[in-house]
Amino acid sequence: MFFIAFLCKISYTAHQYFYGYMYKQNGKTMSDHSAKRKIPVAVLGATGSVGQKFIQLLEDHPWFEIHALAASDRSAGKAYHKAVNWFMDSPLPERIAKTEVQACRPSMDCPLVFSALDASVAGDIEEDFARAGYVVVSNARNHRYDAHVPLLIPEVNPDHLQLLAHQPYGKGKIVTNPNCSTTGMVVALKPLMDAFGLDAVQVVTMQALSGAGYPGVSSLDAMDNVIPFIGGEEEKMEKEPLKILGSPENGRVKSADFRVSASCNRVPVVDGHLESVAVRFKSKFTLSDVIAALREFTPEIQKYGLPSSPRNTIHYFEQDHLPQPRLQRNLEGGMAVSVGRVRECSVLDVKFTVLSHNTVRGAAGGAILNAELLKINGLIH
Amino acid sequence: MFFIAFLCKISYTAHQYFYGYMYKQNGKTMSDHSAKRKIPVAVLGATGSVGQKFIQLLEDHPWFEIHALAASDRSAGKAYHKAVNWFMDSPLPERIAKTEVQACRPSMDCPLVFSALDASVAGDIEEDFARAGYVVVSNARNHRYDAHVPLLIPEVNPDHLQLLAHQPYGKGKIVTNPNCSTTGMVVALKPLMDAFGLDAVQVVTMQALSGAGYPGVSSLDAMDNVIPFIGGEEEKMEKEPLKILGSPENGRVKSADFRVSASCNRVPVVDGHLESVAVRFKSKFTLSDVIAALREFTPEIQKYGLPSSPRNTIHYFEQDHLPQPRLQRNLEGGMAVSVGRVRECSVLDVKFTVLSHNTVRGAAGGAILNAELLKINGLIH
Amino acid sequence: MFFIAFLCKISYTAHQYFYGYMYKQNGKTMSDHSAKRKIPVAVLGATGSVGQKFIQLLEDHPWFEIHALAASDRSAGKAYHKAVNWFMDSPLPERIAKTEVQACRPSMDCPLVFSALDASVAGDIEEDFARAGYVVVSNARNHRYDAHVPLLIPEVNPDHLQLLAHQPYGKGKIVTNPNCSTTGMVVALKPLMDAFGLDAVQVVTMQALSGAGYPGVSSLDAMDNVIPFIGGEEEKMEKEPLKILGSPENGRVKSADFRVSASCNRVPVVDGHLESVAVRFKSKFTLSDVIAALREFTPEIQKYGLPSSPRNTIHYFEQDHLPQPRLQRNLEGGMAVSVGRVRECSVLDVKFTVLSHNTVRGAAGGAILNAELLKINGLIH
Amino acid sequence: MFFIAFLCKISYTAHQYFYGYMYKQNGKTMSDHSAKRKIPVAVLGATGSVGQKFIQLLEDHPWFEIHALAASDRSAGKAYHKAVNWFMDSPLPERIAKTEVQACRPSMDCPLVFSALDASVAGDIEEDFARAGYVVVSNARNHRYDAHVPLLIPEVNPDHLQLLAHQPYGKGKIVTNPNCSTTGMVVALKPLMDAFGLDAVQVVTMQALSGAGYPGVSSLDAMDNVIPFIGGEEEKMEKEPLKILGSPENGRVKSADFRVSASCNRVPVVDGHLESVAVRFKSKFTLSDVIAALREFTPEIQKYGLPSSPRNTIHYFEQDHLPQPRLQRNLEGGMAVSVGRVRECSVLDVKFTVLSHNTVRGAAGGAILNAELLKINGLIH
Repeated sequence: MFFIAFLCKISYTAHQYFYGYMYKQNGKTMSDHSAKRKIPVAVLGATGSVGQKFIQLLEDHPWFEIHALAASDRSAGKAYHKAVNWFMDSPLPERIAKTEVQACRPSMDCPLVFSALDASVAGDIEEDFARAGYVVVSNARNHRYDAHVPLLIPEVNPDHLQLLAHQPYGKGKIVTNPNCSTTGMVVALKPLMDAFGLDAVQVVTMQALSGAGYPGVSSLDAMDNVIPFIGGEEEKMEKEPLKILGSPENGRVKSADFRVSASCNRVPVVDGHLESVAVRFKSKFTLSDVIAALREFTPEIQKYGLPSSPRNTIHYFEQDHLPQPRLQRNLEGGMAVSVGRVRECSVLDVKFTVLSHNTVRGAAGGAILNAELLKINGLIH
Repeated sequence: MFFIAFLCKISYTAHQYFYGYMYKQNGKTMSDHSAKRKIPVAVLGATGSVGQKFIQLLEDHPWFEIHALAASDRSAGKAYHKAVNWFMDSPLPERIAKTEVQACRPSMDCPLVFSALDASVAGDIEEDFARAGYVVVSNARNHRYDAHVPLLIPEVNPDHLQLLAHQPYGKGKIVTNPNCSTTGMVVALKPLMDAFGLDAVQVVTMQALSGAGYPGVSSLDAMDNVIPFIGGEEEKMEKEPLKILGSPENGRVKSADFRVSASCNRVPVVDGHLESVAVRFKSKFTLSDVIAALREFTPEIQKYGLPSSPRNTIHYFEQDHLPQPRLQRNLEGGMAVSVGRVRECSVLDVKFTVLSHNTVRGAAGGAILNAELLKINGLIH
Repeated sequence: MFFIAFLCKISYTAHQYFYGYMYKQNGKTMSDHSAKRKIPVAVLGATGSVGQKFIQLLEDHPWFEIHALAASDRSAGKAYHKAVNWFMDSPLPERIAKTEVQACRPSMDCPLVFSALDASVAGDIEEDFARAGYVVVSNARNHRYDAHVPLLIPEVNPDHLQLLAHQPYGKGKIVTNPNCSTTGMVVALKPLMDAFGLDAVQVVTMQALSGAGYPGVSSLDAMDNVIPFIGGEEEKMEKEPLKILGSPENGRVKSADFRVSASCNRVPVVDGHLESVAVRFKSKFTLSDVIAALREFTPEIQKYGLPSSPRNTIHYFEQDHLPQPRLQRNLEGGMAVSVGRVRECSVLDVKFTVLSHNTVRGAAGGAILNAELLKINGLIH
Repeated sequence: MFFIAFLCKISYTAHQYFYGYMYKQNGKTMSDHSAKRKIPVAVLGATGSVGQKFIQLLEDHPWFEIHALAASDRSAGKAYHKAVNWFMDSPLPERIAKTEVQACRPSMDCPLVFSALDASVAGDIEEDFARAGYVVVSNARNHRYDAHVPLLIPEVNPDHLQLLAHQPYGKGKIVTNPNCSTTGMVVALKPLMDAFGLDAVQVVTMQALSGAGYPGVSSLDAMDNVIPFIGGEEEKMEKEPLKILGSPENGRVKSADFRVSASCNRVPVVDGHLESVAVRFKSKFTLSDVIAALREFTPEIQKYGLPSSPRNTIHYFEQDHLPQPRLQRNLEGGMAVSVGRVRECSVLDVKFTVLSHNTVRGAAGGAILNAELLKINGLIH
């Protein structure tokens, strides 16, 4: 019976089929959940581009259901459809359209909030929510380096959840996901670090326009052009991997000990960050071992069948011309990481190309997967 | 039980969810069919861009199942994945990848063939298949003006199926769909002709690159540019609507009696033809009547719940800046037609903007919907 | 001697060669002028996109020399290079970079000001300058419909200069140029009206992104997309041609008596507005007559050899696929109007395609040409 | 007097002003030459994209004049305008349009031929011409690694001309220029190698579409996408710099002893290759020394005032967001190399961004500059 109930919610665009897909593979787990009442959630910063992506991805989520939308005081009090310039490529769901936008204050009747807040305000607001007992799953950068805040990718460092026990917020918690350009690279580095050790990583990014938010980059800067600079991005890419791939010890993360050098470029692509990566390992390797490590990467989380978890976290492509943003960015609903072109590097050891969807895997989708990990760990009440 | 069976076939990209969506709305009808054995079909011209789109859209179709792939003699004998440069944005299904490509000869064990053949060869091959008893549902232009061949859009002229009785092919039949730039416009014109009569139509198109096939338009011609000419396109747009909107009488179509003037441009958009249309009516109108006619258009076919039929054939948008290719082209799996900006025209009577997905609604998806219409009319055995 | 002096100012990008080109064809006239002291001019609204284009085009102008730059009070007092986000494709000239930006007050020591002001402030400021005795050559829309203000295209309606005698500003004057989407079309309509009379014009535009200023259109709206609406644009295109092509009588313009219906779209092109035009004439025509009228269009202004005047105002292309924005927008330094595809229209009489550079011919370059016309008419002192 | 004569040839688009610009700075040298008869030259492979660029850049060259056009036998015998699909953004010069295309046989009455031949045929044809006594200045890759053939960038390795004495062709010679993606990088590396020694270079390219020729990359592959592979390109970038920056000894080049690792990507940009480069030096450095070395690079060739030589070979930009393809590719007529973002690299020593125009500096313009160097060295008779 619940099959039909669930199906009736599927609607008709790519992103909304997200959970149709996930549902399929993990049928039993899901059905158990969809039979129960869903967990009400709020989206903070709901009118921005990441906020809209949260709404798009949460529509028809089998575990979570949007209960409240919050944004700046300027939007508060308005119906969502009047406060937003909706530019997702699926229709604004009617129920959401009519929802009244609230101010970002911790007075919502839900245990979990997703934060798509701008970094200029996210720091304080997220702490306020955590102190008030909410689980805050944030895409903002403000708390990423806090000692007891996990910078979390479920396939990479689920053990960092142990930091949460040291947070001072009672049952409230803050969990963050990395910057969009970090995520795909770190997923690809994880099995390589496990197999060969990492000594140095050189990465040049070709990042999509949606990473800059809306309105973001002017079309006159974007068209027929590349911008060889993204403010603050290289610093994030050089710092975040060391925490994510570090070891949790006594409630803190001991940084991984390799160096990252990043050069970040903005290219005229709507969605999908492509990155040329070169790596020097600590131990011996062969190219076929490297490819095997990527192909066979099976993070433990895949066992749990989380709704947003891809069947294969990494898809390895043998064809020279792949992966490409337009062809692979939506793989597994945008949650897979695509890797290709593993070959020798005459300066470091190996080079490869990695692609991931920056607003799904690298932002809203990654945060939702984090929340799913929290849920199955009993951290959302 | 069959729900689960069907679900297990859904896979994970936009186009493949096509039938997930259709399934939902028309659940009962579908389940009846999915319980039965599917009808085996062949795709002729399977390696080209329209051929690839047929394969993408037929994957998980509840009624049809690809049984054979045919292409030029050059490809015949190869596994499909070796014969094709697959550039759809969903993975090539594994079963299809391994299928051996055949030559285009009427020796396949299936009652229905979809033709994505190039016009240079489609004429003869399609007739050969029809004479051999196959139902040929073609996207090629060769037989569109044959006296007894329906130029078919199920929401517009399903009564043209009566022409089939006059075809000389026995149980074999040929059915065609219109040119990609014609389809969206004619769907929008249909309710207006019914309500107000059409006297003249002036249309300027802004057509997507995918309409030219692959490799099609050179990137050096496409980028930062508009090409104000598409060979043969204006002629098709000026002629096809008169047959589609004409009246079938004694096995032939009496042309509709209005004039169309078309100017066709190629713009740097991947998918989705946008068209600025101006119309002069035969009878009185008000703008609100025109909008109402578009909004309330309910073609009879919607009752039948065909798998590829959108819930609403026409979506009318009130916002001035809509419809846009990137935002609305995938509406209802790419099968809906989007209309907006109805306003007075100081030269003719009213102007509006129409958008439709050129490779889905305007090509492979339209052909599949035609086949579904044939099926429920008992014309596929 | 002055040849060398002038040459030494030519610098190295397309737009700056503008006058190298003009100089060539009209050598004698120019040399006379370049021997004299140049006329000092000011640019109002100098930091915006049209302001920047004025600076780019005036660099090395043989008659005019930038003497002052003015912008909002926020920019006033700063060196220009600190006040501007220079995004022209030629380097910011060093002398200009160091110039201190002034407030927009009529206290400059120059007889001529170019206004690139935003419409929100242009109305009052331009009048202030005119009253203070300045000749104001404006690209803003505010005064375009004032009874005694010429809406001027030198090749089309130079006789409208007679309106100036009726302006109440003493030796101060206001002259405007049309909207960027109007200019190219009206230049093409002028010889057709003269030859055949105009009854009705239907135009659909495909307009470049630079027409929206900077930052203007978000890249997320522009990429892989068309926006079927530009606020206020259709109204301008339907109204301005009637004044430009009207007859000056007793200090006012009697509107031309034909109708224009416009549909305006924004396409992902950096520069160059392409327009599909259909026309109904008042008298008989043949296609070859129409083409001849376009080809042979020789506005009187061409005799005068103005620095910014193209050798041929209209370039007619016989090839079906021309004109295209990327190939023809820079023709004659961006001041020529390109026309192609003259053919019969089954609804009106003839159809054609017209292209012009929106920020050169349609904005700053058009205004500079207007100033040159004023100069040779002795209206700048 | 000859000033005026020369001026009268300047015509009206960016690329054609090329020599207007060059002329200015190097006035005296040029005037001497322009007074004499120009050297007649032929273009082999004249109908392709590089061939068209040669024609565009040679129009109005002060030393060279196109005397013959040669292409495949298929084109031979036709007027050039009938053999070519001209897609340069300046008009096809009328004299060239009428020129009859010849076959690629060494029977032309001119001492110098530019080769824009495809690599599939360039090898033999170029040797035939050299043996017949022609000086062949080639953009093809076939002879780049021949022992006695200079792989020449006049600002980098003019001393490699000494190899010519060892060629076996009598007064015939072959000179090549590097691959378009190599040139800009090597120009930037030259002053760094001189100052600090090079140990290792890691480069990731973002290459323009025009580098693939015409029709080249399909628009469906290019739009909204990056292709992470260009066949053969990485091999060229890893090998060519070692010859160019090597030392000529006894008629051969001793390779430079550093390693290059290249990753080549195709981005949706029309012209201009942008490259993210990281370098490890052999000796100590400071960032300010590195910037100074780039800024102060003054290759000896600048003294000679060659027509195609930029005033400053390297332009260094302090702003983080520069250089960008659209803003700087046409600097100094497309012959300058732009560098920016020098900063420390945590894996190698320093990182920077380099941009150069791939079809001008990196192909036809580079070859013409090579020919100019040959001319002033008395190697063209």
